[in-house]
Amino acid sequence: MTATSGALRLVADVGGTNARFALARPDGRCETAANLRVADFPEFDDALATYVQRLDRQTRERIASAAFAAAGPVEHDVVRLTNAPWQLAAPHIADQLGGVPTAIFNDLQAVALALPFLGHSDVAEIGPVPRYEAEPPDRMVAVNVGTGFGAATAIPAGDGWTACPSEAGHMSLPAANAEEAELLAALSPGRAATLEDVLSGSGVGALYAWLSGGEPIAADAVFARVDADPTARRTVEMLSRWLGRASGDLVLATAAWGGAFLLGGVVSGWYNLCNDSAFRAAFEDKGKMRARMGGVFSGVVTRQDVALLGLAKAPVAGV
Amino acid sequence: MTATSGALRLVADVGGTNARFALARPDGRCETAANLRVADFPEFDDALATYVQRLDRQTRERIASAAFAAAGPVEHDVVRLTNAPWQLAAPHIADQLGGVPTAIFNDLQAVALALPFLGHSDVAEIGPVPRYEAEPPDRMVAVNVGTGFGAATAIPAGDGWTACPSEAGHMSLPAANAEEAELLAALSPGRAATLEDVLSGSGVGALYAWLSGGEPIAADAVFARVDADPTARRTVEMLSRWLGRASGDLVLATAAWGGAFLLGGVVSGWYNLCNDSAFRAAFEDKGKMRARMGGVFSGVVTRQDVALLGLAKAPVAGV
Repeated sequence: MTATSGALRLVADVGGTNARFALARPDGRCETAANLRVADFPEFDDALATYVQRLDRQTRERIASAAFAAAGPVEHDVVRLTNAPWQLAAPHIADQLGGVPTAIFNDLQAVALALPFLGHSDVAEIGPVPRYEAEPPDRMVAVNVGTGFGAATAIPAGDGWTACPSEAGHMSLPAANAEEAELLAALSPGRAATLEDVLSGSGVGALYAWLSGGEPIAADAVFARVDADPTARRTVEMLSRWLGRASGDLVLATAAWGGAFLLGGVVSGWYNLCNDSAFRAAFEDKGKMRARMGGVFSGVVTRQDVALLGLAKAPVAGV
Repeated sequence: MTATSGALRLVADVGGTNARFALARPDGRCETAANLRVADFPEFDDALATYVQRLDRQTRERIASAAFAAAGPVEHDVVRLTNAPWQLAAPHIADQLGGVPTAIFNDLQAVALALPFLGHSDVAEIGPVPRYEAEPPDRMVAVNVGTGFGAATAIPAGDGWTACPSEAGHMSLPAANAEEAELLAALSPGRAATLEDVLSGSGVGALYAWLSGGEPIAADAVFARVDADPTARRTVEMLSRWLGRASGDLVLATAAWGGAFLLGGVVSGWYNLCNDSAFRAAFEDKGKMRARMGGVFSGVVTRQDVALLGLAKAPVAGV
């Protein structure tokens, strides 16, 4: 089979602002990538039709399957975008594409499905544990901290992988001492604090405001002040601890011995400033599991378009 | 195919004290069950051989697959019992059984694999939410509180189900206020508190001791005192809250919208005394997910031998 005759998978990673389309080969390499703005199209169908119409007929005929990721919860093969009016329904899209097998994933599920296929240059370590490439491969968890907190787990299933989504951002935020408990009560009056109350863009700003006694500022502004502002440094230190604690908890919740893989806007800003040892101390401080957690990898995903890689590799029924 | 000629699966649920063997039909019904004492056999092989030798030849020839659950972590198709010197290795056992496809699971994974097949009389509700039988079916989480705290998730995969194990008992125990944070610091000096520090047999006793200022007693003794002892009542109340909080967190960690299914010795003792509304309030108090959690089922598994049902239905490669 030559490169021009091989089967292609139509993939798209749909966020609140942009929809990134591409044609993926089985090895995950993408061609004919295009970025369409969500605001330019009333429906996902319209954006999809626009992308497909730009392809030549021979290329279109090589599309053998389709997989889409969207920033929203998936229910019964349908996903509604959290931050845009689009809805993606797998059976409807399959019809539009002439009946090719089609699957829809939550965007973090797509990231999780990429984890087993990341190369050495796609990941940077947090702490001293090298990435473990187990045979047979182990579960891995993706942890995204950006506007919100999200996570999904890659789980071996049959000959391939499946991805378990989550709403981990709404789990209880664990306080380790009375000062932390006081902070949480202040950040979430009248209800239990959740991970997202601290581990998110606005959460970092709220944490800084509480520590400084001032107004919330953007997470990037906190990170930019670290050299000059002890409160910003303290914010990053507490963020390191809570992020380590939450990532370690998610490893335990899903037995993800293959490691925790962090990404997202807050992680990108935090990573260059972070205290690896504060992160790892909290990641490993898990009672009888301390020794085992001491051998579990944690790192940051540095590769772009990792969701498209996951979609290229995702299980699609009928393929 | 008649009942006597059908294929059977050899199943065994191996704990630290007892190994329960049976022959399971595809619908999950078991026959020829036997309970062997772990202490009576130097190796699992010996117990297995003893059970198989008791079967008549025609029955032995109907064994088409085997699935075992053991109380310990599974690594590379091998599980070492946590509380006994036995080791179970799937390839070795398959040889012993004449080459039939064989799989090994952690005991909680086996319980999780049974959840989709539990009938109405096998489960009792905690709180007002009826059990939801979704089509297509949703993820579900099994939560076991006994000697320790364990959990596993049932996840749809392909045409069947897979089970994601966990070490959830070692996740951070979330304090919701300064009093709880003080308690946790007392229960786990020098390290972060874990779920098992409260949510386990010895944890309940330690919680009672801290509240009463006395010595730890057994969880059953705490439950037996509830009518006469306000401290025992308070212990059960706090247990209800933490168990609800932890079960809700595990639902969120794995998007287990199909519900949380509790079982184990501590759950059995607690369930008759518990305050449903305290459990549910903590289960649902999850920030932006409060409304959604308000519709998620929680309940107690009342059926015995649920692990054997899970093994009867478990995916076994080659079957």
